[in-house]
Amino acid sequence: MQYSSRREFLKGAGAATIGVVALSGLAGGVLSCTKPSTTETKPPAAGTSPTSTGVPWPYQKIDPVAAAERAYAAYSAGGCMYGGFEGIFGELRNKIGSPYDTFPVAMMKYGSAGVSGWGTLCGSLNGAAAAICLVSDPKVYNSIINELFGWYAMTELPDFKPAKPTTTSQIDTTVANSPLCHISVSKWCTKTGFKTSSPQRADRCGRLTASVVRYAVDLLNKQAAGTFKAAFKVTPPVAECLTCHGKGSPMEDVHVSNQSQCIECHTSLPSSHDAFMK
Amino acid sequence: MQYSSRREFLKGAGAATIGVVALSGLAGGVLSCTKPSTTETKPPAAGTSPTSTGVPWPYQKIDPVAAAERAYAAYSAGGCMYGGFEGIFGELRNKIGSPYDTFPVAMMKYGSAGVSGWGTLCGSLNGAAAAICLVSDPKVYNSIINELFGWYAMTELPDFKPAKPTTTSQIDTTVANSPLCHISVSKWCTKTGFKTSSPQRADRCGRLTASVVRYAVDLLNKQAAGTFKAAFKVTPPVAECLTCHGKGSPMEDVHVSNQSQCIECHTSLPSSHDAFMK
Repeated sequence: MQYSSRREFLKGAGAATIGVVALSGLAGGVLSCTKPSTTETKPPAAGTSPTSTGVPWPYQKIDPVAAAERAYAAYSAGGCMYGGFEGIFGELRNKIGSPYDTFPVAMMKYGSAGVSGWGTLCGSLNGAAAAICLVSDPKVYNSIINELFGWYAMTELPDFKPAKPTTTSQIDTTVANSPLCHISVSKWCTKTGFKTSSPQRADRCGRLTASVVRYAVDLLNKQAAGTFKAAFKVTPPVAECLTCHGKGSPMEDVHVSNQSQCIECHTSLPSSHDAFMK
Repeated sequence: MQYSSRREFLKGAGAATIGVVALSGLAGGVLSCTKPSTTETKPPAAGTSPTSTGVPWPYQKIDPVAAAERAYAAYSAGGCMYGGFEGIFGELRNKIGSPYDTFPVAMMKYGSAGVSGWGTLCGSLNGAAAAICLVSDPKVYNSIINELFGWYAMTELPDFKPAKPTTTSQIDTTVANSPLCHISVSKWCTKTGFKTSSPQRADRCGRLTASVVRYAVDLLNKQAAGTFKAAFKVTPPVAECLTCHGKGSPMEDVHVSNQSQCIECHTSLPSSHDAFMK
């Protein structure tokens, strides 16, 4: 079958097939690039405690709202990554005890504002992902993180209101369309008019951290109950870009990129892309 | 003093002053957004071991090359974040023992390929930053991370050749201009022609992880010797953007953004920016 353009091809009978190719190619890319999560690292040989050095650590169902409130408070004490981690971890420490009482939780403070203020990965995601990896089946944690990141990028957030918020302001929501701190915060500031150094922005990020933790705990509780199902898929626009740039494609020059919308950053493209932009 | 445009203003006599304002404003932004790193989180009350739950953990000078070789091997076992963390942490575990023999290092596997393949923060930086925060003075770790991230963004990398590389290919270098996995890898693939799923790309990322760890250990050894000095500053183009968008500016809608060049993503700007692009 011949098509006069890739656009026509994508719109035509081959679209469904291409979609599958793109998605499966991406999945392969993720797996090949993130290294086999089934390969467990052996605990150090000497002086070790298997209960603390091995993963996953034991998990028991915890209350998502309690974890979210803990995350909100922890955000004020140590920033977004610390909040994202401690919200989950602290509930488990209270419920399970050892080995959760051996961990230096304060080390997670480095991830604030996209790591020491670099605006990269949202710290609430970084912290929650660390906790997810710690307590999850090594074959499953990537899928749980995918669900969390995909939901974060596509959802009006924050969607959690703490019992005792740090401001009395109305905290509006935005859709980040990205897991990056810089994009997430700037969109919110642009919409609301609040400045980045305002108490409202800090309250927003605290509520966002709590929102992320609540959703992450929901996913972890499902994993514990045996009811977690991976549903995340890249969106059609991203899949279309990956037909040329993703794994197995002619160029294969994009490492991996999931829910983040390519056009968030690639706002102008070379003329070779004109056919795709009509 | 009056200027006909902000561009002229920046080029004029006020340039030096504005630069200082932008830089100090950014620094304030970083500090205000990342939460006070001097506020230490209290260890959990019950059943705790201060030697494992408190930070910083003890540090002793380690060999940067040995740490880099360890990071390169760990990359193959668990990906870039695992390599970035284990390269530093493993050397300390071997040298110091407790409390390093209590930590679940495998939890760091989540950061591969910008966290589960999302292409966000380069995992080698994520892992090294976690280790830096764990072993550093809480008042200093942000500065050490800034040095590492700034160096990563501006340096031809990888600059470490392991004793036993996984490929025999020539691994060329690129300047990422960003701490993000997606940008870093895509630039390298575009320059070299190697595909993202190629053994050469994996070798490149392994060497990059080793390069990051070697540099991070250099910084940590300087901190231990009392000779570390924070030298990182945002580049003039970023400082110029922040005169309008950074902390203390008229818009103040950019959370924080350090060495990452704004124009890496903002390749097209509204016409209101024309004066700045000439």
